[in-house]
Amino acid sequence: MGGERGEASVERVLLAHGGGGRKSAQLISGVMLAAFDNPALSELADGGVVELGGVRIAVSTDSHIVSPIFFPGGDIGSLAVWGTVNDLAMCGATTGALAFAVIAAEGFPMDDLRRVVRSAGAAAERAGFAVITGDTKVVPAGEADGLFVTTTGVGPLAEGVDLRPARVRPGDAVLLSGPVGEHGVAVLSEREGLSFTADVSSDSAPLSRLVEDVLAACSDVHAMRDPTRGGVAAVLNEIAARAGVSVEIDEAAVPISDAVSGACELLGLDPLALPSEGRCLVFLPEADAGAALAAMRGNELGGGAVRIGSVTAGAAGMVSAATPVGGRRIVDMPPGELLPRIC
Amino acid sequence: MGGERGEASVERVLLAHGGGGRKSAQLISGVMLAAFDNPALSELADGGVVELGGVRIAVSTDSHIVSPIFFPGGDIGSLAVWGTVNDLAMCGATTGALAFAVIAAEGFPMDDLRRVVRSAGAAAERAGFAVITGDTKVVPAGEADGLFVTTTGVGPLAEGVDLRPARVRPGDAVLLSGPVGEHGVAVLSEREGLSFTADVSSDSAPLSRLVEDVLAACSDVHAMRDPTRGGVAAVLNEIAARAGVSVEIDEAAVPISDAVSGACELLGLDPLALPSEGRCLVFLPEADAGAALAAMRGNELGGGAVRIGSVTAGAAGMVSAATPVGGRRIVDMPPGELLPRIC
Repeated sequence: MGGERGEASVERVLLAHGGGGRKSAQLISGVMLAAFDNPALSELADGGVVELGGVRIAVSTDSHIVSPIFFPGGDIGSLAVWGTVNDLAMCGATTGALAFAVIAAEGFPMDDLRRVVRSAGAAAERAGFAVITGDTKVVPAGEADGLFVTTTGVGPLAEGVDLRPARVRPGDAVLLSGPVGEHGVAVLSEREGLSFTADVSSDSAPLSRLVEDVLAACSDVHAMRDPTRGGVAAVLNEIAARAGVSVEIDEAAVPISDAVSGACELLGLDPLALPSEGRCLVFLPEADAGAALAAMRGNELGGGAVRIGSVTAGAAGMVSAATPVGGRRIVDMPPGELLPRIC
Repeated sequence: MGGERGEASVERVLLAHGGGGRKSAQLISGVMLAAFDNPALSELADGGVVELGGVRIAVSTDSHIVSPIFFPGGDIGSLAVWGTVNDLAMCGATTGALAFAVIAAEGFPMDDLRRVVRSAGAAAERAGFAVITGDTKVVPAGEADGLFVTTTGVGPLAEGVDLRPARVRPGDAVLLSGPVGEHGVAVLSEREGLSFTADVSSDSAPLSRLVEDVLAACSDVHAMRDPTRGGVAAVLNEIAARAGVSVEIDEAAVPISDAVSGACELLGLDPLALPSEGRCLVFLPEADAGAALAAMRGNELGGGAVRIGSVTAGAAGMVSAATPVGGRRIVDMPPGELLPRIC
């Protein structure tokens, strides 16, 4: 590793830079966009779109560092596969193929690797994606912890599908496919050995079919996002900033299970900042909201779909919530250091 | 981490499983193919090919864990970009786009990250690839060492291009684009602080234009591979096994610089097993060998291109070398544990 070390004045990477909140956004705009700037990347969507041989292809990549790697409702294998399948779906690509790259620590139990890879294979099959290429690297003991999995997905976009944060407009409805935060609480609970959340399972699931159902029912969906790192709060702030709009939600309308709500109260977590791995937010014209909700509710993963708010022409980048007690509060971009290794 | 721990009888991941040699091959066939089996993956090429929207798209992914991250002739940023660009090129895809996923340890110097990302950006630009999507994760201090970069490339295949290990046939010539092992010696030298190899720089470079030149000159190239982890020895063994052929090379014909040769003698390394990051092996019918060599030599990265051997109908999977003293030796698949974190 080059550069100076051990000096207080040296700027360093912080956990918050990977948390999906404000620091992540600063890192992306200050370091990544500065070096890689191009129109596809600067959309800041869940994936990039490139035209290859005349076909628009969505590409999305995610490194998964979740700890522990096995948790209620999933493991790093299924999470890595569905996480990337969902990011593609958020771009409007519901079919395609996957690349699966593993970094394992020397000494990692081979049976655990087999279990993770089998789980990833089953997850890919359920989503209808083939894993067509991969890579395996091993790092000497002590230089990495356990297992990291990077999945990348590629999928073609149907004609007319154009889902991008920048397309969100004042007057759009904001829909949510189901209760939030179960993934975050499930992983945290497993890691910390919390007993009061023992019944919470990760919501990790592939959203491709649900997205197909919405796109089939509504011809003019503007954007979709899955509220992973940073949760609903991060997604709404990113959308508001990118599209130059305000978003107003009704906090009481955001579905949260009793177990997640209880965990948030006890642990001092904001449910709006908790990650989900099988939910999505949909932004589309008011007139299509009913049809989209019906389409989501008709899917096994969207039974709890609700409308949570609206896009307005207020201050660009502002997200606010009507509180259950009749007030209104600003929903800030989460700072991002609260939940390391959650996905 | 689940599973049993601390017992001598538990099978564990070894450094050799990531070395690109025999153990890597066992892991891929025993664990990965068992879970992900499909025609594209089982080709065991440098990437997979999938048809999306009627266009054949090559996809390749590689996690980079090289240590140190800065070395003579490159760094983890340029290496990650060109490594994936080259894997795509080995599938016959010489244009396309990249995804760039970073896992950083908490505390990693921000200036080093900037330097790596800038280098990756410049490398992508030189190769003509845009970085259209990415991801950044941060692992708490002590749970990862430095920086890991996973790059994935996608690129369209021109009609008629079909490069696969299984297409190699008895009678094919085996060509090599230049001297081998410089990347391996450069990284090892930097890591261990070796003075007698101070003048060796990594050969890391993008091979897309060289591949275009070969494909333009020869219409029936059967396969290409870049000799990275496990070097020329691993590639030849994989090709021989996959195509069910023998490969016979002339050891003296394999170009090796004096510095690399000297380092190999002093350190007891086999130059045929040393990784390169800017060289390729080409397998094509005897009749086209001259044209392919001329095309390679006309490219700035192929000035040292030579023919090193032939494919024969001998024992399937057998690789042998005529030695400089007039004998013939078996070139085994390297065991793979010698050079951890070399790419």
